[in-house]
Amino acid sequence: MTNHEFYMDLALKNAGAMKGQTDPNPLVGAVIVNDNRVVGIGAHLKAGEPHAEIHALRMAGEKAKGGTIYVTLEPCSHYGRTGPCAVALVEAGIKKVVIATLDPNPVVAGNGVKILKDAGIEVIIGVREAESNRMNEVFNKFIVQKTPFVTMKAGSTLDGKIATHTSDSKWITSEEARLDVHQLRNEHMAILVGINTVIKDDPELTARIPNGRNPLRVILDSTLKIPLDAKVVTDNLAPTWIFTSEQYDQEKRKRLEDLGIKVFQTNGSNRVCPEEVVRILGENLISSVFIEGGGAVHASFLEKKLIDKVVLYFAPKLIGGHNAPTFLEGTGIEKMRDAVELTDCSFTPIGKDFKFIGYPKYNF
Amino acid sequence: MTNHEFYMDLALKNAGAMKGQTDPNPLVGAVIVNDNRVVGIGAHLKAGEPHAEIHALRMAGEKAKGGTIYVTLEPCSHYGRTGPCAVALVEAGIKKVVIATLDPNPVVAGNGVKILKDAGIEVIIGVREAESNRMNEVFNKFIVQKTPFVTMKAGSTLDGKIATHTSDSKWITSEEARLDVHQLRNEHMAILVGINTVIKDDPELTARIPNGRNPLRVILDSTLKIPLDAKVVTDNLAPTWIFTSEQYDQEKRKRLEDLGIKVFQTNGSNRVCPEEVVRILGENLISSVFIEGGGAVHASFLEKKLIDKVVLYFAPKLIGGHNAPTFLEGTGIEKMRDAVELTDCSFTPIGKDFKFIGYPKYNF
Repeated sequence: MTNHEFYMDLALKNAGAMKGQTDPNPLVGAVIVNDNRVVGIGAHLKAGEPHAEIHALRMAGEKAKGGTIYVTLEPCSHYGRTGPCAVALVEAGIKKVVIATLDPNPVVAGNGVKILKDAGIEVIIGVREAESNRMNEVFNKFIVQKTPFVTMKAGSTLDGKIATHTSDSKWITSEEARLDVHQLRNEHMAILVGINTVIKDDPELTARIPNGRNPLRVILDSTLKIPLDAKVVTDNLAPTWIFTSEQYDQEKRKRLEDLGIKVFQTNGSNRVCPEEVVRILGENLISSVFIEGGGAVHASFLEKKLIDKVVLYFAPKLIGGHNAPTFLEGTGIEKMRDAVELTDCSFTPIGKDFKFIGYPKYNF
Repeated sequence: MTNHEFYMDLALKNAGAMKGQTDPNPLVGAVIVNDNRVVGIGAHLKAGEPHAEIHALRMAGEKAKGGTIYVTLEPCSHYGRTGPCAVALVEAGIKKVVIATLDPNPVVAGNGVKILKDAGIEVIIGVREAESNRMNEVFNKFIVQKTPFVTMKAGSTLDGKIATHTSDSKWITSEEARLDVHQLRNEHMAILVGINTVIKDDPELTARIPNGRNPLRVILDSTLKIPLDAKVVTDNLAPTWIFTSEQYDQEKRKRLEDLGIKVFQTNGSNRVCPEEVVRILGENLISSVFIEGGGAVHASFLEKKLIDKVVLYFAPKLIGGHNAPTFLEGTGIEKMRDAVELTDCSFTPIGKDFKFIGYPKYNF
C-alpha cells in the first residue's frame, strides 16, 4: 500500500462513517498531510453544513500551507453555502490534491480540478476510485440518470428456492440475515414487492430495527387485486404507492385513494411496466429502491436491465422440488452466453447464512 | 493454539499430503516430541508399507524414549505386516500419546488405547478430532457401513439453474471450476449420472487431468434407453455399469452386456432404487461415489438421505426462467422445518466462481 492509499483509506473510512446522515448529499472525507504528519481530518456530516475539505482545513489551520489533501470526491467548484472548496484549498496554500474520483455528474466533473490546476496545484486523480464510487453508488446514479439505484434482494436455499413446493417459506434464512434485511430497508427510500407477496404474506414492509426509518412501500399490482384490509393499505406505518397496468378496477382505485394510497397507471397492457415504475419513482425524487421479489418481479426488472445491485442471502439448506419457486423466474434467458454476469462479487457469512453481493453486467 | 494442537496440525499436514497414495488405507501422520523438540515425523505412505508411527519412531531412534507422540489416528492393535503400532510405542519408551481420533471401526476402536494405558502410558484423545475425521471421511464411512461415501456435485448459476429454459448449459462455470471437477472425479472410485445426462450431453465422464484416473461410470437408466453408440458404452475409457428398474428391455440388456457393460436390475417398479445402487456398489468395494446429477437424480438420493457431502460450484450469473431446471428437483421437501441443513459449510473462490462444500444433516 502506498502512502497515497493509506491516507485515502483514512478519508474513505471517515466518509463512510457518516452513512445515512448526509442525504441528499454524497459521503465525502478528507485528510490533510504536511511534512509526513496528518494535520487535519474532515468529513461531510450533514447537508447544509461544511464540506469535508473545509472541516479538514479548519483543523489544520496554518499547517495546511504547503500540505497535501486527500479527498474522496473532487472538490466542488460552485458557490453554495460555504463557497467552492477548490477555491478554499487554493487560498489555504495547499500544494497537492489527491482525489479518489471526479464529480460523477459529467456536466460539472473536472471544474474543481481546473480551478486547482489553474492555481498551479498538483492534482492526482483515481486513488481508491472504485471504493469511493461504490460508497456513493446511489448518489452517483441518481445525480446523473435521475432514476433510482435499484437493488434486488432475495433470501433462498442453496438450490435457489424461496419456498417449498407447498409454499412454505417460514423461515429460510437466519434471524441475523433477516435483521440485515431490515437494516437495508432502513437505508433505502423505497421497498418494492409484487402483489402475490402481499396476498400471500400480508407483510408490513417496514424497517424493524431501533430508530428504523420505514421506506415508501411500492406494490406492483396490475389489476388492483390488493385486499383493502392488507397491512400496507391500513397500517399507516409508511406511505404506500401502487402501480397498475392499463387493466384495473376504477372503482377499487377510488376506494384505495380514499384510504390515502397513491395509484399510478403504467402502460403495460396486462403487466406493470418496470421502466415506467423507475421513471415515475425518479420523478418523485426516490433515489433508491429495494426490490424484495418474488421471482416474477425480479425477472421483469432484470430482463429490462433495471437492476443495479444484487443482494442474496443463502441459507445452507436444500429443499428441492421441480415446482418449488426460485428467486428468479419469468421466461428466463435463452443462451448461457447472454446470462447476466455479476461483478465485484463477495460472499460473507452472516449468522448461519451467507450474504452475496454483486453488480450485474448485461450482455444482451 | 496449544502445543498439542500445533504438533497435531503438523501430523495432519503430513498425513494429508499423501492423499490418493494410501488407498485402501486411511491417511495417518505422526510427530514425536521430546524435551520440546521434534525428534521424529512420519506418515503412512502406501498400503503394505510401515504405519506413520513406525516411520516417526525410526527417525527418532533413541530420542523416542520419554517422548510424546502425536498421531492422527489411534495406533493399531493388530498384527499386520509391521506388528501393532501400540506395542511398538510401548517398546520405544514413549511416555505420552496424543491421538486425534479413535479407530472409526467401533469393533476395534479403543484396543490400541488399551494396550498403551495397560503399559502405563498417558493417553490424550480428541485433539483436532474433527479435522482428522474429515480427512478420512471416505475411509471412515466405508470401513463401518460398507456402503460408499456419496458426494453430490452441481455447477449452477446463482439462481440454482443448471441450464437455461432452452436447455443450454455450455458453459455455466469457469474453466478453473471444471478442472476442479476433473480432480474430484480422479479422487472418486465411481461417478454417477442419470440417463438424461447421457442422452443430452453424451459425456465421457472421465478425469481429464494429467495422470487422471478414470472412475467407474455408473448410469441410472430405468428402462435401458441408453444409445448403443453413447461414449460411455463404446469408448472403453473406463468400465460402465448401468442400473435399471424392473422395467427394461431384455434384448437391449443382452446387447449391452455383449459390449462389456454390466447391467444391474434394482427393485424400483419404474425408477431405479437408489438404496440398492449404493448397496450393490458397496458390495463391489466401491468406497466413494461422485454424483453429477441432474436434478432428479440428486433429489432421489437426497430424499433417501444417501448424500454424505455436497459440492456446488456457483457461477456469478443469473439466467432466471420458471422452466429452467435447477440442480435439485423431484417433489421436494414440504415444510421448511424439514429442509436438509448443511453443516461445516464453506465458500471458496475458484476462478470467477465460488465453490461451496457442506455436509447434510437430515431432519426428516
